[in-house]
Amino acid sequence: MATVNENFLKLKAGYLFPEISRRVRSFQAKNPDAKIISLGIGDVTQPLPAAVIKAMKKAVDDLADARTFHGYGPEQGYDFLIEAIIENDFKSNRVDLDNDEVFISDGAKCDTGNIQEIFGLDNIVAVTDPVYPVYVDTNVMAGRTGPADKTGQYEKIVYMPCTEQNNFIPDLPNVPVDIIYLCFPNNPTGAVAARETLKRWVDFARKKKAVILFDAAYEAFITDSCFPHSIYEIEGANDVAIEFRSFSKTAGFTGVRCAFTVVPKQLKAYTKDGRAVGVNPLWNRRHCTKFNGASYISQVAAAATYTAEGKKQVRRIIDVYMGNAALIREALTKLGYKVYGGINAPYLWVKTPDSSSSWDFFDRLLQKANVVVTPGAGFGPSGEGYFRLSAFAKPDDVKEALQHFANSV
Amino acid sequence: MATVNENFLKLKAGYLFPEISRRVRSFQAKNPDAKIISLGIGDVTQPLPAAVIKAMKKAVDDLADARTFHGYGPEQGYDFLIEAIIENDFKSNRVDLDNDEVFISDGAKCDTGNIQEIFGLDNIVAVTDPVYPVYVDTNVMAGRTGPADKTGQYEKIVYMPCTEQNNFIPDLPNVPVDIIYLCFPNNPTGAVAARETLKRWVDFARKKKAVILFDAAYEAFITDSCFPHSIYEIEGANDVAIEFRSFSKTAGFTGVRCAFTVVPKQLKAYTKDGRAVGVNPLWNRRHCTKFNGASYISQVAAAATYTAEGKKQVRRIIDVYMGNAALIREALTKLGYKVYGGINAPYLWVKTPDSSSSWDFFDRLLQKANVVVTPGAGFGPSGEGYFRLSAFAKPDDVKEALQHFANSV
Repeated sequence: MATVNENFLKLKAGYLFPEISRRVRSFQAKNPDAKIISLGIGDVTQPLPAAVIKAMKKAVDDLADARTFHGYGPEQGYDFLIEAIIENDFKSNRVDLDNDEVFISDGAKCDTGNIQEIFGLDNIVAVTDPVYPVYVDTNVMAGRTGPADKTGQYEKIVYMPCTEQNNFIPDLPNVPVDIIYLCFPNNPTGAVAARETLKRWVDFARKKKAVILFDAAYEAFITDSCFPHSIYEIEGANDVAIEFRSFSKTAGFTGVRCAFTVVPKQLKAYTKDGRAVGVNPLWNRRHCTKFNGASYISQVAAAATYTAEGKKQVRRIIDVYMGNAALIREALTKLGYKVYGGINAPYLWVKTPDSSSSWDFFDRLLQKANVVVTPGAGFGPSGEGYFRLSAFAKPDDVKEALQHFANSV
Repeated sequence: MATVNENFLKLKAGYLFPEISRRVRSFQAKNPDAKIISLGIGDVTQPLPAAVIKAMKKAVDDLADARTFHGYGPEQGYDFLIEAIIENDFKSNRVDLDNDEVFISDGAKCDTGNIQEIFGLDNIVAVTDPVYPVYVDTNVMAGRTGPADKTGQYEKIVYMPCTEQNNFIPDLPNVPVDIIYLCFPNNPTGAVAARETLKRWVDFARKKKAVILFDAAYEAFITDSCFPHSIYEIEGANDVAIEFRSFSKTAGFTGVRCAFTVVPKQLKAYTKDGRAVGVNPLWNRRHCTKFNGASYISQVAAAATYTAEGKKQVRRIIDVYMGNAALIREALTKLGYKVYGGINAPYLWVKTPDSSSSWDFFDRLLQKANVVVTPGAGFGPSGEGYFRLSAFAKPDDVKEALQHFANSV
C-alpha cells in the first residue's frame, strides 16, 4: 500500500498567491467589466532589456544549427554566466568566489524551497514573521515541524516577529535554532539590513554553528550605498551562509527563469555525532541529481544583463519600479496610511486602516477600488493588520490604482 | 548546530554521468589531439526543428514588448501547451485527461526525482536493475533506504533484475512493494513493454494498492504500432499510475528544458491508518511551492512541436536517430557483439566482449577507439558486463565511431 507524505496534510489552506488569484478570478467573473489592477503578486511588467532580447535571439539561432547547438549544459550552469556573476555581483563588492561555489538554477523560489533537503530533519528552523511562505511550507513538507496552530504557525518552527517596535528587523532568538532564513531587502516588509545587523547574525550563527539561508533576491533595489548587497560582505559569512539571488525582479526574468545560489566551500554543517561535513558538495549532489540545468537561452539572457548595455538597461527598469514605489509611498502617506519599505526594496508594507484584518481589507479594496494587494496575514500572524504593495506594476496602472485608492476611502 | 541530511552520505561515489565526464576530460587532457566521439550520455545533437525556432523567436519578441510580455505563468504550465499535449499525445491514443492532470515542468529528470517527495518514507520502493540512477538516488536522499552494499545496491530497495533470461522485462516482485518505477521504452536496455506486460503491472498495482511511476520519456521512439505509448492505454492505470514525458529526446529540448507529468485525479495513496488521499493535489501543492513554472519561451517552443509542421520536423529528427540505431545494431552485430534494444528505443544495450567489466571496457574503448559509451554497471549490478550506446550522436560521428570500434577489436 503506497502511503502519502502525511506532512503535506499539515499544510494550511492554499498557498498565498493561488488563493489571491482565486478570489480575483471569482470577483472578475461576477464583474466582467471591472478593470482590476494588481499591486499584489510581485510580478514584473516591464519588457526585457534590449540587450537581453538580442542575446536570446542569438541563443535561439545557436539551437537552429548543429554546429552551435547546445544540449545538456553542466547542471551547475555555464561558466560564461558564472564568471559574469562573480565578476559583477561579487568582486565589485570585494567578495571572492570560486566558480564551483555558484550554482545556476531556474529560480530562487525553487532554490530556497529545495535547499532544506540537504539538512537533517532534526534542525530547528527559524524564520521571520511575516515570512515568504515557501521557506516554511517546504520545511513542513519535509517533516521539520509539527501541526499548525490556529494562527497558522507550525510547531517546532521558531518565529521571529518583525514589527514596528523592532523596525521589522528580527531580534536574535533566545532559544536554540540551527537554520535561519533571512531575506533582505525583505519580502514582504521592504526592510533592509544594515551592515551591523548582518554582522550580529553572522556572529550568532558562527557561535551556534547555525546556517543562515540568506535570500538576496531584491538586492538590486538597494538605493542607499551604506547597505550591504551580499551577506558575504560581512566577515566570516562564508563559514555560515548560503545566498540566493535571482534575475527575476532585476531584469524581468519571472517568465524566463534564471537564478543562482552561492554555497561557499568553507561552509560546514554537522553529522549528529559532530563531524563537520562540507555543505557545497551536498548541494552539488542534490543539484546534479534532481535538476538538469537551466535553459541555455535563459543563461545566455542572464549573461547579457552584465554587458555594459545590459547593465544600463536593467538599471533603467529598476528605476521605473523604484519610481512607482516613491509614488505609492507619497500617495498613501497623504491618504493617511502608515507606510514602510519602498525605499531600498520594491515592496511597501502598509497598515490597514481602522485596524481591519488583512483579508477583510483585501476583499474591500478589491470590491471598492478593484485594486489587488497582498494581505499581510498571508505572510504570518505578525503580518495581520498590514498589506503588501508591490512596485512592479506599470507606472500608468500604479497611478490609476492610487486614484482608485483615493476615491475609495 | 546545523546538521546535514545524513542520507546523502550513503550515496555511492559520483552520479554516473559526471564520473564519465571526469574520465573523458582526464583522457582528453592527456591526449589533446584525440577526437573523442561520445555514444555515451543520451544528449541530442540534431538542431531544433524550424517550427520550434520560429515559435521561440516569436516568444522572445513577446517579451520585448510590455503589451505581450509574460511574467510568471501558472506553475502548472500554460493551457495552450497542456491542451496541445492532451489533444496530440493522449486523445489520439484514446486516453482522456483533464487540464489539471497535466503538470508542465523543466525536465523529466527533475520530475522523476521530485515525485517521491509526496509519498511517505515508509514506502518500499521497487526499481529495475539496471535502472536510471535518479530514481534510486533521490530515494536514498529522502531516507527510504539503508546503506549501499558492495554491489552498490541499497538496503530496503527492491531490485528487479532485467536480464537476457527475462528479455529485460522485470518479473512481478514476490515481496511487498509500494512504489514501482518502470521505464518503457527502457533506459538503459532499450526494451519495450507490450500491452500485456503493462496490464500485468497495472493489475498488480491495483491489487497491492501500489503506485507505478511510469517514465515514458522515450515513447516517441516506439516504431512498432503494437506497443502502447502511454500506460493510460491500459485499463485501470488511471487509478495507480503517474506518467512522465519529455520534449528532450523527441524535439531536442535537452538545453531548452520542458517536460510534463500526468497525475490522474483518480489516483489515490493512503495515510498510515488507511485513509485514501488524492495524489494529484499533493503534487500540485509540491509543484506550486517548490517550482515556479517552466520558461515561457520553452513552453511556446514545446507547443510548436504539435503543429502540423512541427510534428513532421520532429518525426524527421527521430528518424535520424533511429537510423543511427539501426546502423549501430548492424555494425556491432557484424563485429560479433550481442546487441539488444535500438528498435523501439534510442538506446542499445550491448554485452562487453570477453566478459570484461563495464568500466574496464569503457576505459579500454576510450583509450583505443576514443569512443565514449556508458558502462552498464553504472545502472546497477545486472548492468555489469554490458554497455549502453545512445543513438543521439550525429550520423557522421556514429559512422566514424563504428569505424573506430571495428579497428579496435
